[in-house]
Amino acid sequence: MSKLDTLIKDLVVANRILAREEVVDAYGHISVRHPDNPKHFFLARSLAPDLVEQGDIVELGLDAQPVRDEKRALYLERFIHAAIYEARPDVQAVVHAHAEDILPFGIASATPLRPVIHSGSFIGAHVPVWDIADKFGDTDLLVRNMEQGRDLARCLAGNNVALMRGHGFASAGRSLIEVVRMSVYLPRNARALLRGKQLGGEVKYLSDGEIAARAAGYSPYSTETWRAWEYWANKAGCGHLLTRPDAQHGHPPKAKA
Amino acid sequence: MSKLDTLIKDLVVANRILAREEVVDAYGHISVRHPDNPKHFFLARSLAPDLVEQGDIVELGLDAQPVRDEKRALYLERFIHAAIYEARPDVQAVVHAHAEDILPFGIASATPLRPVIHSGSFIGAHVPVWDIADKFGDTDLLVRNMEQGRDLARCLAGNNVALMRGHGFASAGRSLIEVVRMSVYLPRNARALLRGKQLGGEVKYLSDGEIAARAAGYSPYSTETWRAWEYWANKAGCGHLLTRPDAQHGHPPKAKA
Amino acid sequence: MSKLDTLIKDLVVANRILAREEVVDAYGHISVRHPDNPKHFFLARSLAPDLVEQGDIVELGLDAQPVRDEKRALYLERFIHAAIYEARPDVQAVVHAHAEDILPFGIASATPLRPVIHSGSFIGAHVPVWDIADKFGDTDLLVRNMEQGRDLARCLAGNNVALMRGHGFASAGRSLIEVVRMSVYLPRNARALLRGKQLGGEVKYLSDGEIAARAAGYSPYSTETWRAWEYWANKAGCGHLLTRPDAQHGHPPKAKA
Amino acid sequence: MSKLDTLIKDLVVANRILAREEVVDAYGHISVRHPDNPKHFFLARSLAPDLVEQGDIVELGLDAQPVRDEKRALYLERFIHAAIYEARPDVQAVVHAHAEDILPFGIASATPLRPVIHSGSFIGAHVPVWDIADKFGDTDLLVRNMEQGRDLARCLAGNNVALMRGHGFASAGRSLIEVVRMSVYLPRNARALLRGKQLGGEVKYLSDGEIAARAAGYSPYSTETWRAWEYWANKAGCGHLLTRPDAQHGHPPKAKA
Repeated sequence: MSKLDTLIKDLVVANRILAREEVVDAYGHISVRHPDNPKHFFLARSLAPDLVEQGDIVELGLDAQPVRDEKRALYLERFIHAAIYEARPDVQAVVHAHAEDILPFGIASATPLRPVIHSGSFIGAHVPVWDIADKFGDTDLLVRNMEQGRDLARCLAGNNVALMRGHGFASAGRSLIEVVRMSVYLPRNARALLRGKQLGGEVKYLSDGEIAARAAGYSPYSTETWRAWEYWANKAGCGHLLTRPDAQHGHPPKAKA
Repeated sequence: MSKLDTLIKDLVVANRILAREEVVDAYGHISVRHPDNPKHFFLARSLAPDLVEQGDIVELGLDAQPVRDEKRALYLERFIHAAIYEARPDVQAVVHAHAEDILPFGIASATPLRPVIHSGSFIGAHVPVWDIADKFGDTDLLVRNMEQGRDLARCLAGNNVALMRGHGFASAGRSLIEVVRMSVYLPRNARALLRGKQLGGEVKYLSDGEIAARAAGYSPYSTETWRAWEYWANKAGCGHLLTRPDAQHGHPPKAKA
Repeated sequence: MSKLDTLIKDLVVANRILAREEVVDAYGHISVRHPDNPKHFFLARSLAPDLVEQGDIVELGLDAQPVRDEKRALYLERFIHAAIYEARPDVQAVVHAHAEDILPFGIASATPLRPVIHSGSFIGAHVPVWDIADKFGDTDLLVRNMEQGRDLARCLAGNNVALMRGHGFASAGRSLIEVVRMSVYLPRNARALLRGKQLGGEVKYLSDGEIAARAAGYSPYSTETWRAWEYWANKAGCGHLLTRPDAQHGHPPKAKA
Repeated sequence: MSKLDTLIKDLVVANRILAREEVVDAYGHISVRHPDNPKHFFLARSLAPDLVEQGDIVELGLDAQPVRDEKRALYLERFIHAAIYEARPDVQAVVHAHAEDILPFGIASATPLRPVIHSGSFIGAHVPVWDIADKFGDTDLLVRNMEQGRDLARCLAGNNVALMRGHGFASAGRSLIEVVRMSVYLPRNARALLRGKQLGGEVKYLSDGEIAARAAGYSPYSTETWRAWEYWANKAGCGHLLTRPDAQHGHPPKAKA
């Protein structure tokens, strides 16, 4: 199987994982940059992530328009992806979603969302909140064009995650696996912080040094990273779609019977 | 298949979706107005929504009585539906349910339920709370006759949702798809608001302009609306019951294998 | 099938429902009084309710001892049942469980558990809290003999539910269906009250008149009561075990395909 | 089947239970000491617990290194297990996990985690919080060597559970069954305490005498302990893997059809 086929299959797996882990429902999407052409990226046609198959993946340019003739409807908010790929050459994969437990942090400014648990470290020390109303006034809150997408990308800046007020979040990673993991643990970190606050007194956040130490150890196909990907894929019912680019660990992916 | 057959099938799908999404349990119901006779509407016989099939649907008049000879037991609270259809010619579909996470807002008056997330915008800027005791004193809280139903409809007025103190809510939409979507995201909006409050400080609500902008973009068979319906139907195990009145998008409904 | 066979089968269904609805886990149990001999009752041998089958049901006397030779281990806390049947001739079925969301109300005395939602009315206007330590000092908190069971029954008095501090609850009903419904909606009422409190301000409870009006309308085989039983049994995977003593409603139980 | 084969199979069951009960996800692990050689213990290779089968179990020494030639990747944090077995000859089984609902108690020091419900008594009267930063400064929070493992074991001391700040917990028991039960009820106790606090006023904890009375009654194959193990194994889909070392109770394990 070609490298590109594998990537598309991984994108399907990523869609299903995000659905199973309740990061997305009918809405929300995940994309991956074209490995050989950094000005293109892949994203499903307008479809609930849980239903996405390989044939539903579309190739888009940095203007968020399909690079080939395409009759099928596309996600209205594909501009989020295009704008982040445009602004951030280091980013290989993007998620936009409305995971419920991050929503309170987008509407209540008193408690900024910051990492409090080790699995939440990947969201980074600073999680900016973007409010579309600041620049665009009363909208339907959707990111419907490049101008809005670029404004969000500016707010994201060099961070890994930006909350979107009253709407959801956008996250950006160096690989599909990284952005999925970050997006799954983002709401968990949010819940831990909310409940820590509820216990009263002071909450101890991860230090900048801890966040940096964890980021330094990251590799998309490390044993530890792969373990989660393999687990989530099986849980989402697509263990059979797993492929592992490096066979160095001597074990094929495990698919639950 | 006739337009009416399709509508009845959609009503079955709607019943199952509301059950799967935990908007209803054994109790709660959804109806749709007869497309050709605005003085009739369709509602299941007294049965848990998750068990409803086409043969369980009954045609009722605006007095909430069956229009044909009917031996089967009916929902006690069918008057909610009749009274709303009577008062609101614009309404095509009605839900009454007890979704758990809206209940706190019906019993604690300090924090009115208002949209804080974009998917919650459809509940509208104002969500009145109806207390059956205000007019009817000590009852079993059920809406058992037209007089009570009309009092609830008066409280609902031109809004999309009314909370019912100590009981649940009634929602009214321009289509089955709209009223289902509103009813699914209503508890999510309630949770986001409750948790925003728990984070302390001020909560930022959707502005009236944002609510209006979102309402303006609504269409029951838009790509975005359909995406949710297709997803929820599959999740509820009835993707095979999907039909799509307009085939303009070039894609048949997707049923998960 | 004899009336007794039907009752035993209903008791199996009740076990499975309580497991599926997370009222019980490995622990917790439900019993029913012998319809022809009020000094006997039926309860499973020591087994997780989700695994209970007809052959696991044991007949016990009001001393909580088996009335026939029995080699199998029994629930340690069967004295809860015996003592309540002894004290309350009106009671036909008893549940003891540790449903998670009622536990806070047993350990925090500031907010008494009272009905705030219509489905919670069945717990009654007053829910006493029994603390085993008050009379028995430091124990393992289990009700291990008739003396302890009787002390709990005294605290329960004429009420429908007693909370047990740091442990769980005991509920008593006029039928299996009633005690199951009460036990399923008890934690829901607890959650609604907790979250109502979190919203701030005053919480509106059901009035005594409302609680009485709802209790007055109860009948174990009413259409409305049966609807929940049929739904829960199907959800628990045992729709095929349903029997309906009165066929007056013209519909056999519905078992989901 | 040999005693060792049975133990390995039990360890597989324990892995699956912890996954099903959401104590672990892709991360977290459980080990058991070698019954004939207290300087060895068994732990899966680096794999999500839900995917663990008998062939995935590895035998390690008290230095956390495999005792036989091993090419497969191992858990980075196996030092937690080795250090606890080294320090605590009484301990036969160890869990390390990140169960979400204990995390708030590791980051908010105002409310110590203590037993408030009878099923939570097994965590013991005192649950210390270990902060890796106290001795090792800024790390990735993982226990990556014996020095760190020993520091955690010192904090655990003679207790059953230690929380790990911003990370999770380690629990130690006298058998697989005990450590699994403790680990499943630990988050439930945490939730009950958090919500008790939210109700306001004073919370009543279990007394030291109650905790001691419950601990005194413990036996790994008592009817009551076994009941939970049998239930959880069936729920996790591995009822068929159950074996019961003592047949004294006259009943083979029950596997749900």
